[in-house]
Amino acid sequence: MALRACLRGRRGLTGVLSQLSSCNSHGRVSPVLIAQQRNNSTSQKIQVDFDQSTGVAVMRMQNPPVNSLSLEFLTEICINVEKLEMDKSCRGLIITSDRPKVFSAGLDILEMYGKTPERCAEFWKAVQEMWLKLYSSNMATIAAINGSSPAGGCLMSLTCDYRIMADNPRYTIGLNETLLGIVAPFWFKDTMVNTVGNRSTELALQLGLLYSPAEALKVGLVDQLVPEDQVLTTATKTMSKWLAIPDHARQITKSMMRKPTIDRLMSNRESDIKNFVGFITKGSVQKSLGMYLEMLKKRKA
Amino acid sequence: MALRACLRGRRGLTGVLSQLSSCNSHGRVSPVLIAQQRNNSTSQKIQVDFDQSTGVAVMRMQNPPVNSLSLEFLTEICINVEKLEMDKSCRGLIITSDRPKVFSAGLDILEMYGKTPERCAEFWKAVQEMWLKLYSSNMATIAAINGSSPAGGCLMSLTCDYRIMADNPRYTIGLNETLLGIVAPFWFKDTMVNTVGNRSTELALQLGLLYSPAEALKVGLVDQLVPEDQVLTTATKTMSKWLAIPDHARQITKSMMRKPTIDRLMSNRESDIKNFVGFITKGSVQKSLGMYLEMLKKRKA
Amino acid sequence: MALRACLRGRRGLTGVLSQLSSCNSHGRVSPVLIAQQRNNSTSQKIQVDFDQSTGVAVMRMQNPPVNSLSLEFLTEICINVEKLEMDKSCRGLIITSDRPKVFSAGLDILEMYGKTPERCAEFWKAVQEMWLKLYSSNMATIAAINGSSPAGGCLMSLTCDYRIMADNPRYTIGLNETLLGIVAPFWFKDTMVNTVGNRSTELALQLGLLYSPAEALKVGLVDQLVPEDQVLTTATKTMSKWLAIPDHARQITKSMMRKPTIDRLMSNRESDIKNFVGFITKGSVQKSLGMYLEMLKKRKA
Repeated sequence: MALRACLRGRRGLTGVLSQLSSCNSHGRVSPVLIAQQRNNSTSQKIQVDFDQSTGVAVMRMQNPPVNSLSLEFLTEICINVEKLEMDKSCRGLIITSDRPKVFSAGLDILEMYGKTPERCAEFWKAVQEMWLKLYSSNMATIAAINGSSPAGGCLMSLTCDYRIMADNPRYTIGLNETLLGIVAPFWFKDTMVNTVGNRSTELALQLGLLYSPAEALKVGLVDQLVPEDQVLTTATKTMSKWLAIPDHARQITKSMMRKPTIDRLMSNRESDIKNFVGFITKGSVQKSLGMYLEMLKKRKA
Repeated sequence: MALRACLRGRRGLTGVLSQLSSCNSHGRVSPVLIAQQRNNSTSQKIQVDFDQSTGVAVMRMQNPPVNSLSLEFLTEICINVEKLEMDKSCRGLIITSDRPKVFSAGLDILEMYGKTPERCAEFWKAVQEMWLKLYSSNMATIAAINGSSPAGGCLMSLTCDYRIMADNPRYTIGLNETLLGIVAPFWFKDTMVNTVGNRSTELALQLGLLYSPAEALKVGLVDQLVPEDQVLTTATKTMSKWLAIPDHARQITKSMMRKPTIDRLMSNRESDIKNFVGFITKGSVQKSLGMYLEMLKKRKA
Repeated sequence: MALRACLRGRRGLTGVLSQLSSCNSHGRVSPVLIAQQRNNSTSQKIQVDFDQSTGVAVMRMQNPPVNSLSLEFLTEICINVEKLEMDKSCRGLIITSDRPKVFSAGLDILEMYGKTPERCAEFWKAVQEMWLKLYSSNMATIAAINGSSPAGGCLMSLTCDYRIMADNPRYTIGLNETLLGIVAPFWFKDTMVNTVGNRSTELALQLGLLYSPAEALKVGLVDQLVPEDQVLTTATKTMSKWLAIPDHARQITKSMMRKPTIDRLMSNRESDIKNFVGFITKGSVQKSLGMYLEMLKKRKA
């Protein structure tokens, strides 16, 4: 059923492309920092607002145009998450986007095109690191998905404990790697299986399905839909319910659920990097990516 | 969705407490033993009615006030299940409660509070034993859930082949251990994953969710809802359908489905006991339990 | 819920029997071969129409009366699938039935009754081979289920990437082995768990559930229902969407999803054969099968 709906809508590659290319022309003012928040850290691409009275940090991604996960951006995300993780007063993390219409467009394709194997390896290590930090976080984590979230953007949201998405039918979410001729690695797959089960994952990954919010809710890829202007406020309210649970019991439980999946990457990091680099530097794959980037450029022009 | 519904209802800790404390004041006459049943065994806390003409035993839990699973009660359960298991003429087991409003309130917290490590170990071994006997039973097993069934009560029902619950919105069911600051061990988790899948388990265990019957049906924690006065009759009717299947084929199939989960506890029993004892005897955990018991007392007063 | 619905309908053994036995009396003309298809291969029991312009082969099963999977028929299926697999221009395979009212009635019971252990072993090896070839196929595979599909017929459809079933409430689908007193082996079980999850599989296999198309859709055993006369056209349309995905990315993804399940049989083929032969040649099992065949004969008479 999910498949039919997804294919009927003919979202997919074209859908992503139009979203990606249209994002440049729609600026949005960045929300004003609220003064009473005590512990904020703002880098160029990440804005973290930590409210010590609630123990909740909000991490806003602002890497124009579409929060593509470049090596630099991934590194900033990791540093910020690690900082919050070490701050025992920070118990909850909400991840959201400060860019219009998009949560994150996923891995930056420019990091995979025409790069040396060494650079590709460094990039992939950063993708792993981001996933490891978020999926194993002791904080309660909520993704406030206020825009489209394909591929790596979807993965990032899947690392969270709870997903709230804007109920805007123009947004999509999914691990759509196959559409680009590339393949979601085993730990992307594991994360999705843990969330929506084996069969939905098999369909979604083989076909590179991008789901509308309604479809994503139905299949279990997100937990809740709310009007677009209520995504963050709902995330905040929901977080207070997560923080009502004793931390140590929640953390042990979370670790028990996720440890086997985390251990699987941990004990295969090097081979996974090698595998990625070998695949992505192939002539045929580079050619696919080149064509994809060319299409992107034409769309923007 | 389940999360929202569960949290909206603000059941949870308070809900359990009020149910537990209100159970004392509502006595109910025990059902009269039906004379033609040929092979009955009644202990203080368990009443077993075995009808040899159908091959079905009904095990009624009657450990006032709320069928808490104490060491003594668990031992009686195990003895009775084992007796039935050895009786080749007994092919089906229905487990239900003889106490008003509650199936079982779960593990007896008094067994975990202020006890020696040795006693805690003995208690935990009995919990394991109950689970092992029921989850691996050759009999077709049906839980006739005629009242609330939190924590260990939920676990007991999850060991059965089929769960029929009273459609009374005041009852709840779920593995809500985290609400008390304790943690469901891996085999509780495995049993729940086997029933409702990974994602629903992750949400439920992290948040200690207690589901209304309607929510429990939706998430797959129970298989069927019926009016309160039809729980046992429906269980009996359903059992006749299970017994229409050739025993040996059904038993081999059941074993094939459950063996990996059972083997996992079997090969980790000692470390699981050690882990439980180490956790439960911690000062911080004892303090949490003490506060919880204090709350219970105040509610009853 | 599924259980109740399935049992209420009292499909099951009787349902299958009546379907099987009624199939003989309803002939249907075989569809005319379309002339422009370039590469067709037709054996006695299998008709393959391969359209090189689309890269899609349609394999029609025509083993009267009910496409029972005999050793001979299984061998033909394997040879035909292997041929298509080796033809790099064949990217998609649609499997359907040319017999009225039935997709496939499953494993041929005559192959398991009164046969030598050697012959049973040969038969079982062919069942394994069929499953291995189809479940690991590099082609996109769609089951166009235009009739009932019990037991081995259901298994065959479960190997495909997508299942479209005729929305005719008189048809049923399911792994109903226990009804005959036999047991679905672990890889049947694994395939079903991969499709509908653990709990639905446990219920279905223990009770030998046969689902109506509507129930099968609900539980996830099939992906889509269409009017009976549109099964094949819908399969063809759906296939074009699968073939829009770059082959290599889809194939790697499919392999990643299915390899652990395939490896499990691959490394246990011999013991699985031994296990099957030991079980099926037992006196008690032979007796069950004999009674079943006797019932079949009476129905036909």
